[in-house]
Amino acid sequence: MLHDEPTGLDPRRFPVDPWRLVETGLSTADLGVSETLFAVGNGYLGMRANPEEGRESHSHGTFLNGFHETWAIRHAEQAFGFAETGQTIVNAPDAKVIKLYVNDEPLLLPEADLVSYERALCFRTGRLTRDLVWRTPSGTHVRVSSSRMCSFEHRHLAVFTFEVELLDHPAPVVISSQLLNRQEGGDEYNVEAAALGEGGEGIDDPRRARSFDRRVLLPRLQRVDGDRVVLGYRAARSGMTLACGVDHELQAGDAADVMTFASEDLSKTVITVDAEPGRTIRLVKYATYHTSRGVPAPELADRCERTLDRARSAGLGELAAGQERWLDDYWRAADVRIEGVPEVQQAVRWNLFHIAQASARVDGMGVPAKGLTGQGYEGHYFWDMDVFVQPILSYTQPVVARNLLRFRHRMLDDARRRAREVNQRGALFPWRTINGEEASAYYAAGTAQYHINADIIYALHRYLKATGDSEFLAGAGVELLVETARLWEDLGFHRDVDGRFHIHGVTGPDEYTTVVNDNLYTNAMARFNLALAARTVEDLRAEDPDAYARLVERTGLEPDEPTAWARAAEAMYLVYDHDLGIHPQDDSFLEKERWDFEGTPLEQYPLLLNYHPLVIYRFQVLKQADVVLAMFLLGEHFSGDQKRRNFEYYDPITTGDSSLSPCAQSVIAAEIGEHELARRYFNLSLYMDLCNVHGNTADGVHVACCGGVWMALVQGFAGMRDHHGLAFDPRLPPEWEAMSFRLAWHGRHIDVRLHRHEMALELVGGGDPVQVLVRDEIVDIVPGETTTVPIETLAPNGGATGQA
Amino acid sequence: MLHDEPTGLDPRRFPVDPWRLVETGLSTADLGVSETLFAVGNGYLGMRANPEEGRESHSHGTFLNGFHETWAIRHAEQAFGFAETGQTIVNAPDAKVIKLYVNDEPLLLPEADLVSYERALCFRTGRLTRDLVWRTPSGTHVRVSSSRMCSFEHRHLAVFTFEVELLDHPAPVVISSQLLNRQEGGDEYNVEAAALGEGGEGIDDPRRARSFDRRVLLPRLQRVDGDRVVLGYRAARSGMTLACGVDHELQAGDAADVMTFASEDLSKTVITVDAEPGRTIRLVKYATYHTSRGVPAPELADRCERTLDRARSAGLGELAAGQERWLDDYWRAADVRIEGVPEVQQAVRWNLFHIAQASARVDGMGVPAKGLTGQGYEGHYFWDMDVFVQPILSYTQPVVARNLLRFRHRMLDDARRRAREVNQRGALFPWRTINGEEASAYYAAGTAQYHINADIIYALHRYLKATGDSEFLAGAGVELLVETARLWEDLGFHRDVDGRFHIHGVTGPDEYTTVVNDNLYTNAMARFNLALAARTVEDLRAEDPDAYARLVERTGLEPDEPTAWARAAEAMYLVYDHDLGIHPQDDSFLEKERWDFEGTPLEQYPLLLNYHPLVIYRFQVLKQADVVLAMFLLGEHFSGDQKRRNFEYYDPITTGDSSLSPCAQSVIAAEIGEHELARRYFNLSLYMDLCNVHGNTADGVHVACCGGVWMALVQGFAGMRDHHGLAFDPRLPPEWEAMSFRLAWHGRHIDVRLHRHEMALELVGGGDPVQVLVRDEIVDIVPGETTTVPIETLAPNGGATGQA
Repeated sequence: MLHDEPTGLDPRRFPVDPWRLVETGLSTADLGVSETLFAVGNGYLGMRANPEEGRESHSHGTFLNGFHETWAIRHAEQAFGFAETGQTIVNAPDAKVIKLYVNDEPLLLPEADLVSYERALCFRTGRLTRDLVWRTPSGTHVRVSSSRMCSFEHRHLAVFTFEVELLDHPAPVVISSQLLNRQEGGDEYNVEAAALGEGGEGIDDPRRARSFDRRVLLPRLQRVDGDRVVLGYRAARSGMTLACGVDHELQAGDAADVMTFASEDLSKTVITVDAEPGRTIRLVKYATYHTSRGVPAPELADRCERTLDRARSAGLGELAAGQERWLDDYWRAADVRIEGVPEVQQAVRWNLFHIAQASARVDGMGVPAKGLTGQGYEGHYFWDMDVFVQPILSYTQPVVARNLLRFRHRMLDDARRRAREVNQRGALFPWRTINGEEASAYYAAGTAQYHINADIIYALHRYLKATGDSEFLAGAGVELLVETARLWEDLGFHRDVDGRFHIHGVTGPDEYTTVVNDNLYTNAMARFNLALAARTVEDLRAEDPDAYARLVERTGLEPDEPTAWARAAEAMYLVYDHDLGIHPQDDSFLEKERWDFEGTPLEQYPLLLNYHPLVIYRFQVLKQADVVLAMFLLGEHFSGDQKRRNFEYYDPITTGDSSLSPCAQSVIAAEIGEHELARRYFNLSLYMDLCNVHGNTADGVHVACCGGVWMALVQGFAGMRDHHGLAFDPRLPPEWEAMSFRLAWHGRHIDVRLHRHEMALELVGGGDPVQVLVRDEIVDIVPGETTTVPIETLAPNGGATGQA
Repeated sequence: MLHDEPTGLDPRRFPVDPWRLVETGLSTADLGVSETLFAVGNGYLGMRANPEEGRESHSHGTFLNGFHETWAIRHAEQAFGFAETGQTIVNAPDAKVIKLYVNDEPLLLPEADLVSYERALCFRTGRLTRDLVWRTPSGTHVRVSSSRMCSFEHRHLAVFTFEVELLDHPAPVVISSQLLNRQEGGDEYNVEAAALGEGGEGIDDPRRARSFDRRVLLPRLQRVDGDRVVLGYRAARSGMTLACGVDHELQAGDAADVMTFASEDLSKTVITVDAEPGRTIRLVKYATYHTSRGVPAPELADRCERTLDRARSAGLGELAAGQERWLDDYWRAADVRIEGVPEVQQAVRWNLFHIAQASARVDGMGVPAKGLTGQGYEGHYFWDMDVFVQPILSYTQPVVARNLLRFRHRMLDDARRRAREVNQRGALFPWRTINGEEASAYYAAGTAQYHINADIIYALHRYLKATGDSEFLAGAGVELLVETARLWEDLGFHRDVDGRFHIHGVTGPDEYTTVVNDNLYTNAMARFNLALAARTVEDLRAEDPDAYARLVERTGLEPDEPTAWARAAEAMYLVYDHDLGIHPQDDSFLEKERWDFEGTPLEQYPLLLNYHPLVIYRFQVLKQADVVLAMFLLGEHFSGDQKRRNFEYYDPITTGDSSLSPCAQSVIAAEIGEHELARRYFNLSLYMDLCNVHGNTADGVHVACCGGVWMALVQGFAGMRDHHGLAFDPRLPPEWEAMSFRLAWHGRHIDVRLHRHEMALELVGGGDPVQVLVRDEIVDIVPGETTTVPIETLAPNGGATGQA
């Protein structure tokens, strides 16, 4: 169901530029949105695009991946096994603040008389720049140019520049560069409110983060050395430690006077210059953050000093060059070039750039639902990462994909514990978490989403398909398979009456229907998980006895377990309605009343903010694709006809109240030949944040949706599938002249260039030829040669990629 | 399913006595249980049986019906329409404390050298008495006799006596009579814990009450006048006000020195006597409590003064006599006499006495799940009152039953608002509440129990059957019917495919299965509610145009609404399995796996404290009777054969983890001829608290279970039904010689005496004869004459009472 369709960015304010998001005029009307859109980050460190002046913001934001505070979840009514530890990413001390005074007049954007203004996030330099000319109240014209970047090379480092040039008269100029620890909810803890249980730790919109009504960061150290400051903290309850530091380089001639001082929550480096016209005052500010679960703050402070030393020794030029080099590599691997529609090209690159910003240097962490661009969903890791971000990473940044799988594997002991807590065998991954513990306080749309287990295996499978990394599979991979399969086999049961394996009391991806029996998505994904586990373990036993022995040691695997998994997979019940020829979303879905869409005004969406869950659950209405997502992820198990009929049944009752939905709808629409719908759902994904479609972009970028843009392009319009080798079923939107992209493939690359009437493929990186299926044709692609396959325009209905 | 069966009280500690619960030895091993069992109360004011000395307690408890504190429910994850205001009955200042010092040695029961000890709760005098002889450390023997009562005549009044007599030597005696406001969780508010969100406001067992980690009662006034003290308070967040006072009369000869002083949370009246052997020091202490939603504390304090004036002017003798008069009347109406099994007689009377203590003077309030004997379930009113307490009241204390119905009616505006909050028409009564607002924070076992609406109508129906109170029906009654029927008609829907009316997404009485479609109990009760509403409104329109016009004015009733209700009732879907010949609990119940009872050790019960809800919900396992309860409440709609098959199917999978379950199981077991099971389930109800069957009697009396004892006796063993007039199908347990009881019947009484081979009936109160059905025989009972009906021993299967 498409309520309305975003028409793209307004080119008067955001001119089309294939490599930048540019804002030509200042607006304070949608501060929260632009703070998100122009955010910078590197997967470890992220900063919202608050202006340097540090005022007039929707929400200041500096985030370190995984750096969180915990809180005891108080269930209004307790029950056995409910999640106990809430986790919220902490808003870290803010190094972005650089205040400017000319003639003692402060530059304050909303009030300033601006002669010119431009802000741009450049996808090639990886820097956010701002250039403006300010006419001060006393009539002086001042050029102010600033930039910021979070280094992709040095994950703990951010670099800021700030240039001031007087254009007509001399004047005294003061620059105050700060490191400011804003305690959330104000600096003072409101004892009275807390005493009455009215504290601000509640939230009205479940998608937003909880705010603390207490001090979260306890000061642990302050060091000042010249113009360098390092501050250290400990999070009050989680015990995590943080140190952050700033250092400064100034080019301002002799007349500059610089003073630096620091207190517990604030450091200031104040630069005073009797400035002359035509002479640029240039400040370079290096900022660094180090965090840990256990290392004391002084040790982290030492690390900050070393990072700052290295940064100063490299200097701005080398750091900027390194940033560009990194991005050159990134775009070589991940770019999707689209010809003929520059505004689409720009938006696509913005989405892909935010994938890099969310994932590049996560290293040992995960990818939060909002990356590091906002506090939405409390900085938690969800299935978003596994199902929506891992595919693009597997095919463009397999090293990052592998890191994320290792991250999931490190969570396995927590997941084993969690399975015990909910009375199950094997491992149950947390629906949402930072530290590995289940943080979902609402089990019906949390813990009940057991499908998270299979989603992780789906990510593993994609990674293995793209890389053939058998070493990973034989170690962490198969251990993940064993423990997830155990959970499924224990969770479901063979029912005597029909001899099928059923899984009861679970919630699928669609959170507008919860705790049901035999959710189609869950059962199909569990079948996939069980079968893959059984096959992999049997293969390992046959082919790699040592690895098998290690597996048995680590998991206590019994020889007959794989047989039981295979049996469960084989007997898995997939609900099907013969009259309608569709897969009901769950066993009783078709018995429900259809939601009264005609009687629901637009302002009542998203439904979750306007109807009691019990009401929503009672009707046939979807928050997001569920069966349709299964048609995509497990396309090899369903016929083209089933996909079409399922899509046609569910599409009108899918609200798309989740940002995860339109990409899957686009891919399946493309596959079944609904090309116009495919394009429209793609646009929804593409502009989800750029046009603030869900009204909550202020809370951060929908990172999974950025991954979904890649899916819709590569798996939708190019029809790429990897069920058995690589396959393509292209259906380029008619307005597009060409689309090209690169896929990482078993240590090499395949370049794909799609025109309206042909597809060109090239294998990069030597070695043997690779067989690829293009629609029904087997094509051999050979290193160094471009193989061109003629294709008909827009096949009405995909056959090859379904491979059913 | 019967895990094990309580064998009754241990006669060595609790000797059999048909009119008292007597404890002959002191035990501190189960303080919490005995505090509950010996509690006194009158429905407005209740006190746990803490000893006068005020030490060594499980929990001190003084409760005023409806006097509560509120708190903002913090949902760990918020959603639209979730309940917002938590409510918890407040532990009021404690007037029970009377400390004794002889030779400066305090009497402390656990350490005292007791020569003799007896404590007794007398069901005829309505007083708790304690008599003991204490040998002090210095060797003096002291007789201490005390008593307490909450006056049934004067609902705001409690009276204590305390007598001290030295048995051998003279000695200085000090008595300190207190009024003590114990702030919950200690007197000091733990700021540090609250700041970390670790405050004590969470609970682990959802059946217990929340404790506050802050001051609840803010002192408002202290008055001292002679030996009288009045203290006033306001609850910090609910704003409710409380005043309490004590006054003293002393008989101690000339040598007594009395001093009274008061501070914010404590008053003391200290009596010092140079006591002589043989001269009894006798203290009478009057205590009073007044509470209000809005009246300022000084006005309540004035009311306290007037109550104390009245009490002193009446004096102990008259007050005690009034208490006995009230209980004479009560027992005349409510006693169930059982011959041949004195230990059963004692236990039955204990249960019936607690019905009186929980309901006698509720006046404008409801009956909390624990009465006023403990803080369990936070002092909330549930359906317990409507389904389990109202039947006995309707047939023994119809005035109290009417008050409770009026109380429900006064809640109607809140229920209308609540229906809007959950997007429905009509009225939805709160699942649990004190002030009328929904306080159930866990919707799956709270708000989803829409059946509360029909439960209230069930109570109304019973009351009308017993009294024929057409005036009540034409006013408040029909308004309740209209608004509840509206909810049902809006909640369900006519499904095209089968033409039936379905109700989806609800929870029935059994909380081990939640949020299901077409719960049998709910649908059957809704059908009853809808049909009764339609019929009543149509009758009113035809027979009482004025009342009908008032109804239309109050409810905006449209003329076609009753037709729609009747249509929904007629089309109501009652799920039925033809193969098994049973009514599945809900539409998908039979698809579930059976719980592994064999593999579940006894210590894993109750399941709710040992398994995640998702696990429990996934299996065929019941917390309490659900279909079986419907078989009882709506027996006229089901055949004897259906009842038998349903009972046989559900009984083995019903854990009885709820105290509400065994009475319904007993009644249906009796009806279908499972007499041994009927007796055993009756025993479970009978001894639920006396033998602490569920291990939580310390939290208070299971009042609904006390009502269930009456049901099992009168509706089970005597087989009384009132579907169409009065009917009996007696099946006296073979060990019992006779059972007799009285039923209030349309302004008169019917005395019933059941022997093994005959049943005697007598109409008391004049007027026309009444027709009664005894099994299949129509019997005319005539005023002043005893009609005797011979009956066969234990009919194998009830036919008449089913009336199907």
